[in-house]
Amino acid sequence: MNFHTRKWIKPEDLNPNGTLFGGRLLEWIDEEAALYAIIQIENQKVVTKYMSEINFRASAKPGDIVEIGLEVNKFGRSSIDLKCEVRNKMTYETIITIENIILVNLDEDGKPLAHGKTEVEYQSDRMKKKGF
Amino acid sequence: MNFHTRKWIKPEDLNPNGTLFGGRLLEWIDEEAALYAIIQIENQKVVTKYMSEINFRASAKPGDIVEIGLEVNKFGRSSIDLKCEVRNKMTYETIITIENIILVNLDEDGKPLAHGKTEVEYQSDRMKKKGF
Amino acid sequence: MNFHTRKWIKPEDLNPNGTLFGGRLLEWIDEEAALYAIIQIENQKVVTKYMSEINFRASAKPGDIVEIGLEVNKFGRSSIDLKCEVRNKMTYETIITIENIILVNLDEDGKPLAHGKTEVEYQSDRMKKKGF
Amino acid sequence: MNFHTRKWIKPEDLNPNGTLFGGRLLEWIDEEAALYAIIQIENQKVVTKYMSEINFRASAKPGDIVEIGLEVNKFGRSSIDLKCEVRNKMTYETIITIENIILVNLDEDGKPLAHGKTEVEYQSDRMKKKGF
Amino acid sequence: MNFHTRKWIKPEDLNPNGTLFGGRLLEWIDEEAALYAIIQIENQKVVTKYMSEINFRASAKPGDIVEIGLEVNKFGRSSIDLKCEVRNKMTYETIITIENIILVNLDEDGKPLAHGKTEVEYQSDRMKKKGF
Amino acid sequence: MNFHTRKWIKPEDLNPNGTLFGGRLLEWIDEEAALYAIIQIENQKVVTKYMSEINFRASAKPGDIVEIGLEVNKFGRSSIDLKCEVRNKMTYETIITIENIILVNLDEDGKPLAHGKTEVEYQSDRMKKKGF
Repeated sequence: MNFHTRKWIKPEDLNPNGTLFGGRLLEWIDEEAALYAIIQIENQKVVTKYMSEINFRASAKPGDIVEIGLEVNKFGRSSIDLKCEVRNKMTYETIITIENIILVNLDEDGKPLAHGKTEVEYQSDRMKKKGF
Repeated sequence: MNFHTRKWIKPEDLNPNGTLFGGRLLEWIDEEAALYAIIQIENQKVVTKYMSEINFRASAKPGDIVEIGLEVNKFGRSSIDLKCEVRNKMTYETIITIENIILVNLDEDGKPLAHGKTEVEYQSDRMKKKGF
Repeated sequence: MNFHTRKWIKPEDLNPNGTLFGGRLLEWIDEEAALYAIIQIENQKVVTKYMSEINFRASAKPGDIVEIGLEVNKFGRSSIDLKCEVRNKMTYETIITIENIILVNLDEDGKPLAHGKTEVEYQSDRMKKKGF
Repeated sequence: MNFHTRKWIKPEDLNPNGTLFGGRLLEWIDEEAALYAIIQIENQKVVTKYMSEINFRASAKPGDIVEIGLEVNKFGRSSIDLKCEVRNKMTYETIITIENIILVNLDEDGKPLAHGKTEVEYQSDRMKKKGF
Repeated sequence: MNFHTRKWIKPEDLNPNGTLFGGRLLEWIDEEAALYAIIQIENQKVVTKYMSEINFRASAKPGDIVEIGLEVNKFGRSSIDLKCEVRNKMTYETIITIENIILVNLDEDGKPLAHGKTEVEYQSDRMKKKGF
Repeated sequence: MNFHTRKWIKPEDLNPNGTLFGGRLLEWIDEEAALYAIIQIENQKVVTKYMSEINFRASAKPGDIVEIGLEVNKFGRSSIDLKCEVRNKMTYETIITIENIILVNLDEDGKPLAHGKTEVEYQSDRMKKKGF
């Protein structure tokens, strides 16, 4: 699993008990899953349709750095199925895991649209093919 | 199921496609579940531990009003298990459902703490008992 | 008066003295009044025109849960006049009261538009009439 | 009346109708009144206690610049009474007026505390006296 | 240099160490520079193109009031070059200085557009000329 | 240069012209620089002291994905000097470049503190050494 996006936990991200607000973490995950799917599918109109059960394994405190990891479970015809793990960057302690986040590729009218992708592509490879 | 909290979907709540950002909705649900649990358990130190699978059934657009419903599935010794539905206030269309959101009551040291509750209590009844 | 929407006071809602920032509370009230009026009038283009004097009776601290109550004072031809109270959910202590919040129903061009409503309607009754 | 703070209306400040969200404007006013009072009273522990009726005279749209004006109506023993006007910076159109915003100076225990001020002081004069 | 906009440092503006988050300060400066340029150039389509080196000279803590000062270094054909200083309102301690912030006036297609301005104008003078 | 953190440009990130608000981008960069420095220096008390000139080379629009790249220019005794580039993830177009962002490592009293680091370390290597 590749971990890209990192977040620095600031006071605006806390619940009243002074630890990372779970809702903020879910917001971060949903954004990361959406942009990951957009990069893979190469279409901006992608929406989250399903998340499997979510385990909040550990908390985090102000000043901690968390990183969000995603990998592809499988490509559907118009969907993409991702696995997610969020961990503490300094200790590698797992904070949350989600086995399946399914996003769907939509056409202009909001109907599912086949995306034609069957495997993970790296943007760096795509750019090389284009001569960058 | 009782629906209390309502949200008016404003531009700050949208994804780039102009519909309700799923991450924002999850943030709202987590806050609502936490405060619902705090009200029932009468302890402020309650954290989300688990959410069962989440189905994003419909979207919502700017200007829509959504309401968040919760009910208790069951009381554990130190936990509470909630069911959640978010729906469009004007059409009653279901936007999202989550069968189980489990929150845990913690003591000062962050260890699970028995809460002694076994059934739903209404704050209005509690206040009456106290003579309000 | 019915109290619906609840808020959990988080660090992002505080003033530098560590209590609920009054401006945040006014923001919550204005949103709640707007969506309440939209529900009653069944038109999304409703704007706040007037608030009567506001008494900040008590403060609130992080972790407190506040609930916002509204009721209709009276229906005008193109307006609606609401009364508002915000209270602490756990103690029923009143935090703020506003006797009159007047919102106006607008047409497409932003001109006042008669809304035809004369009494409070419940969305649940409306849905029943439609056979839900 | 002196107009200091200016705001540039961005998408995050809009209601779903695409005009300035009234709640956001109230939030800005409350912050401005608080800091104005803190500057005058020279004590950071100041809270808003009362606002007289609020007239929303005009709206504002994205890209507009609004400026917030305040002046002292009168100094109380432990309070300060301010008048507020918000106007469009480019057209001087009045957006909102509030005749009285009363803030109270508090001691460490949150009790009203005499502030000893009887007239407006300018920070530039204070600094000159200190030899800056 | 004229100092207009003031900010009251609230918990949502802090880094995890409890002092003013530098990124928040840069956000405030960029907004203030943009609206200052819009006022001078009398065109809403103005974008930041360049900032010279930024010195973070001092920090600020919750409850502090900072004020943002700007003045014009020079008017270009389609640009405006500003100097910025942010200081603590109560102590006049300098928090940050930026010698040059250059913004460019754009036409509808996003191309640089001559703005015809050569010296600072005050909106109050402009309004007087129009008979206000 | 390694590009880690990604951002999906949402309506809340826009200026009134509908493109990415420059101040938001600077906020993202400052957070990323801070957490990058914290990871390298292995101390949470790190503050931004200096940024060299900033060129806004291109804009971005809602739905675009940007990624923030950082690399170490050099390690000082108590400081770290970083280079930053933000680019569009899909087109590799450069949005902003900053040659030097200098952050300083502080002790408990806010005084510069030698950090003892002289080269980039990877957290994955650190974890291996610890037997993970």
